Amino acid sequence: MRAVTFQAPKEVRIEEKPDPEIGAPDDALVRVEASGICGSDLHIYHGRVPVEPGFTIGHEFVGTVLAAGDEVHRVAVGDRVLGTFHTACATCVSCLRGDYHRCRNQRTFGHGSNLGDLQGAQAELLLVPRSNLTLRRVPEGMSAEVALFAGDVMGTGYHAIAHAGMKAGDTVAVLGLGPVGLCAVQAALAAGAVKVFAVDTVEERLGMAERFGATPLHLSDQDPKKAIRAATDGGVDVVVDAVGDPGPLALAVSLARDAGTVSGIGAYAGKGEVPLGLAWLKGLQLRLGLANVIAHVDRVLGLMEAGKLDPGPLVTHHMPLDEASEAYKVYDQREALKIVLMP
Amino acid sequence: MRAVTFQAPKEVRIEEKPDPEIGAPDDALVRVEASGICGSDLHIYHGRVPVEPGFTIGHEFVGTVLAAGDEVHRVAVGDRVLGTFHTACATCVSCLRGDYHRCRNQRTFGHGSNLGDLQGAQAELLLVPRSNLTLRRVPEGMSAEVALFAGDVMGTGYHAIAHAGMKAGDTVAVLGLGPVGLCAVQAALAAGAVKVFAVDTVEERLGMAERFGATPLHLSDQDPKKAIRAATDGGVDVVVDAVGDPGPLALAVSLARDAGTVSGIGAYAGKGEVPLGLAWLKGLQLRLGLANVIAHVDRVLGLMEAGKLDPGPLVTHHMPLDEASEAYKVYDQREALKIVLMP
Amino acid sequence: MRAVTFQAPKEVRIEEKPDPEIGAPDDALVRVEASGICGSDLHIYHGRVPVEPGFTIGHEFVGTVLAAGDEVHRVAVGDRVLGTFHTACATCVSCLRGDYHRCRNQRTFGHGSNLGDLQGAQAELLLVPRSNLTLRRVPEGMSAEVALFAGDVMGTGYHAIAHAGMKAGDTVAVLGLGPVGLCAVQAALAAGAVKVFAVDTVEERLGMAERFGATPLHLSDQDPKKAIRAATDGGVDVVVDAVGDPGPLALAVSLARDAGTVSGIGAYAGKGEVPLGLAWLKGLQLRLGLANVIAHVDRVLGLMEAGKLDPGPLVTHHMPLDEASEAYKVYDQREALKIVLMP
Amino acid sequence: MRAVTFQAPKEVRIEEKPDPEIGAPDDALVRVEASGICGSDLHIYHGRVPVEPGFTIGHEFVGTVLAAGDEVHRVAVGDRVLGTFHTACATCVSCLRGDYHRCRNQRTFGHGSNLGDLQGAQAELLLVPRSNLTLRRVPEGMSAEVALFAGDVMGTGYHAIAHAGMKAGDTVAVLGLGPVGLCAVQAALAAGAVKVFAVDTVEERLGMAERFGATPLHLSDQDPKKAIRAATDGGVDVVVDAVGDPGPLALAVSLARDAGTVSGIGAYAGKGEVPLGLAWLKGLQLRLGLANVIAHVDRVLGLMEAGKLDPGPLVTHHMPLDEASEAYKVYDQREALKIVLMP
Repeated sequence: MRAVTFQAPKEVRIEEKPDPEIGAPDDALVRVEASGICGSDLHIYHGRVPVEPGFTIGHEFVGTVLAAGDEVHRVAVGDRVLGTFHTACATCVSCLRGDYHRCRNQRTFGHGSNLGDLQGAQAELLLVPRSNLTLRRVPEGMSAEVALFAGDVMGTGYHAIAHAGMKAGDTVAVLGLGPVGLCAVQAALAAGAVKVFAVDTVEERLGMAERFGATPLHLSDQDPKKAIRAATDGGVDVVVDAVGDPGPLALAVSLARDAGTVSGIGAYAGKGEVPLGLAWLKGLQLRLGLANVIAHVDRVLGLMEAGKLDPGPLVTHHMPLDEASEAYKVYDQREALKIVLMP
Repeated sequence: MRAVTFQAPKEVRIEEKPDPEIGAPDDALVRVEASGICGSDLHIYHGRVPVEPGFTIGHEFVGTVLAAGDEVHRVAVGDRVLGTFHTACATCVSCLRGDYHRCRNQRTFGHGSNLGDLQGAQAELLLVPRSNLTLRRVPEGMSAEVALFAGDVMGTGYHAIAHAGMKAGDTVAVLGLGPVGLCAVQAALAAGAVKVFAVDTVEERLGMAERFGATPLHLSDQDPKKAIRAATDGGVDVVVDAVGDPGPLALAVSLARDAGTVSGIGAYAGKGEVPLGLAWLKGLQLRLGLANVIAHVDRVLGLMEAGKLDPGPLVTHHMPLDEASEAYKVYDQREALKIVLMP
Repeated sequence: MRAVTFQAPKEVRIEEKPDPEIGAPDDALVRVEASGICGSDLHIYHGRVPVEPGFTIGHEFVGTVLAAGDEVHRVAVGDRVLGTFHTACATCVSCLRGDYHRCRNQRTFGHGSNLGDLQGAQAELLLVPRSNLTLRRVPEGMSAEVALFAGDVMGTGYHAIAHAGMKAGDTVAVLGLGPVGLCAVQAALAAGAVKVFAVDTVEERLGMAERFGATPLHLSDQDPKKAIRAATDGGVDVVVDAVGDPGPLALAVSLARDAGTVSGIGAYAGKGEVPLGLAWLKGLQLRLGLANVIAHVDRVLGLMEAGKLDPGPLVTHHMPLDEASEAYKVYDQREALKIVLMP
Repeated sequence: MRAVTFQAPKEVRIEEKPDPEIGAPDDALVRVEASGICGSDLHIYHGRVPVEPGFTIGHEFVGTVLAAGDEVHRVAVGDRVLGTFHTACATCVSCLRGDYHRCRNQRTFGHGSNLGDLQGAQAELLLVPRSNLTLRRVPEGMSAEVALFAGDVMGTGYHAIAHAGMKAGDTVAVLGLGPVGLCAVQAALAAGAVKVFAVDTVEERLGMAERFGATPLHLSDQDPKKAIRAATDGGVDVVVDAVGDPGPLALAVSLARDAGTVSGIGAYAGKGEVPLGLAWLKGLQLRLGLANVIAHVDRVLGLMEAGKLDPGPLVTHHMPLDEASEAYKVYDQREALKIVLMP
């Protein structure tokens, strides 16, 4: 089979590899119909996340089950399925608490031996372990390019809102309108947010957020803090920081209402300066970390099937798998929100 | 001023009464623009809820603040306001837990001396105690007949969903499509329900629920249990019983998924037979009781202002206050979903 | 190996059976050190829960791991372990929500083919599937007869309190002082209940509850409702019904404070008459169903190791496995709170 | 009456002032039996929190109600009462959500005009507004020096644990063993913590924590991180930072388990460097801010009455009110954990 492999920083290549085969009783083998290139793939592409040369990358996918072990009961051979970006063991202390994103035996597709040694989804075939957690049927009539969001980017947008405890009738600000931020805008509106303020500097992204139903606020041309103060009673209930490090955490703290929540879904690294005094005075909660997509995927799919979440507009590019090298260049130049690769 | 008073079962009358005046520092005096007739007014009308002859009835209202005590800080003289159907003391043990609906000093408008001795809102003028809890500004541009739902029927629909802990992506069944049930349908959809099954026997109400976005199921012509089984994975996450006693609690238990929730918002009285064995096997939660509208009113108003909740279609009749006697007859014959009275 | 088998109502027998062997990669084989006889074993003994003649019964155990499949990672060969009374698949829709007690592939030890066809623990050897969920190491120095409570009766007492959302500083009433009720008394006190009222008619059990720290109330010689009214501000925060059907649900409803919770942990069957009117007026929550012991077992073990829960006093009888027939007779005559069998 | 007044940094003085009188209908006048000197009084004493010269200070008290307005219903004239350190309006948007600590009309006793212009409790007489929220009866037989903790320091320790969502069976680390940290140790144990690690550098405080049931860990002589790693499965469920700024937040983040909670109860000011990368990787929640003592005071008092919380050992000094100047000097030299002043 053909597969997109990491070779060196800024160098990916299509390689011919042996077809994978199922081994464990909860393995499934998937013929990939479409895979996505995601912001975290760029960390690999730039060499910031170390991956062995020759390792297949990619962690967003839709495809058809070709083979399945005896214990696979959530999907069946012939099913059209999507996957979550990582697997979990379901039995460690984190999984038993429902924190699948902190699974002690977590394996992330396409992230090298450090993160579970699990070959990636930008390929013709994909071996999926722990299929009962990792795979779900694609609802009737849903396109592949839409469905592959459920197990990664849309699941992350949903998490940013759900994990913050947002209630129908609340107000929300989303900082950073990359794919995750735009999905968080949709998730907030789907869950009953009455005002969603979407903050970025890129006009196209602000425009897309506005079409989704948000109030766009240009980070530098406008004064988001002033605008949000004027439109709310003391700040928003939930602020989503979809940028991460180095990012708008200080702005996030200033936008939240007293006893509100900041949902830090964008990745942080190292140490950061936080306006702790203001956060303490306000009595804020900061809820940080990766999304728990396995816990959310059924609800997210339901919302997508009902048309309440629709990542379709985020897909700006479709390219053949064989042009992966070009695709990564395009994505690296930030010319695309989401590129979908098709074998 | 003129006021609608209870006289005897099936007899209400317009009477001339002295204008009320503010006394306590958190009192407000409201010139009523519109008041609603509600299902609970029928309990009074039929004599099931005892009210003194001559007592002014009515507990849903919109109007303008004519005067306000020194401690009134949530609204001001001249504001167009709506009210919640009851007041609360804010300082008893229930209120301190946020359970304003169980306030030990609760006073319900227009329900006689047993329920707080607070004259009702179907009148030209209304004295409102505890205004900071009880009154809210009507959002710009919202009609009176829509706004008066926020503090009673829509607040109750919202409670049925919120108190059940429904999450975006969940499935819901609403049993009984009176005004509360129809509002619960809207509240579920606004909060991200992906499938809402609306069960009743009245075609018009089923049709309205369908227009709101629900799947209508005729209680006797169709088999709601079978239909919901077929369309869900083992039942719905939340069942709202908006009928009460004698009502569909047994059906509700059968429709809920394992570890799901039944939200019993319709009023029960006396003892009832419950399929406890099935509820226990399923591990259900039954959450019963009156709505906590004071806790919800700000979020409900926000959702109404954002157009995510719209009780407008429920208003089937507008009548002058002076025709209250006729209005009660119409409502009693179940020819109306909601009658709005205007002085 | 020798095993206690069901033969017919009121007849159990020691039989010689082939030693079980591990098959699946998450199986473990346990040499049983001690097993318990539990109230639910009596349902089998009386024929109310149908079990095939010759089926090994028992679902509470402590023992040593003799063999384990490749995927067993929470315990190891040689470990002294205890088990939960049932297994779960960890991957169905219920398990993924954390509702292991509603696992769609649940298998209960020693309950016949209807409940998962899993041979029981009153035997010399036990085959344990899904060991990562089902087995835990016994803390250093804990006796077998104490440890076997963690996965069944004490886990159930803990669930009755935790699932009710009890907070430190709350008041609790426990109705029914069988082993589960007595464990609920301990669990409430361990979690910070400030007053625990323990209601029963058996003096010994009332005395034991009192020694645990509860206020004993004799159901018929005293007036529990009056006593609890006098000692609380309007009723208790949480009522545990540890009796079930036919039981004290009406009393439970009357004892709960406004907006309080009734935790129905005792098994119900069929239909029951419930004072719905009062429950609705009070705005109660009824949380029903079997305990989620898999979710709780780590915390329960921690509390037992810390000495904050101690089921030791509940063990009234120790008998050799070979005398199981006699043991069941003793238990059936309600002469024992807990009988521990040792091979 | 005599009252302790702030004059200038490091200068407090006893002054004769006119007796206060009740004005509003929910005012109460209290004859003070005992008042406490608290860590936040030192902020005033040092001039960091600006207070007008001549303003009476102090915010912890027990006394007897001498007079009460018509609307005071939670206490009565003649009652022995304790107070919370601040009042709240009960009707603003924060109070309605139950966030009394973020009341928009909050007034803190003895903190000058910036914080509500409310004269303090280190005096013979105290005027208490909003008495229904602020005052509670002292349980029979409880000493004044113990009771005054309920509305301030013990309420804060309880909040640190409750607001973190700690469950019975969890593990906790408390960083900083001043009065708040020591109360948090007790609150954790009362709520069912199975291991509480108490970290400080002062031997006496470590010894006191150990007597309360905690495992003492010397911050510099021992390696708390290593010790906690060895004794837990990947860190504690809850870390309480009772030091604040500049403080052990980095250590707190390192001690929490994956998806655990850091409860930042110690006051922060300005900006602080936080190990955001680690906090994000672990998926932590940081819950910051002042304690919501009004929400907790009834449960805290219940726990104190039941003997499950006992701040008695923290009272190291009793001094006459007239020696307040000397008392502040002693407290400033950190020779006392808690000084109680008696008129």
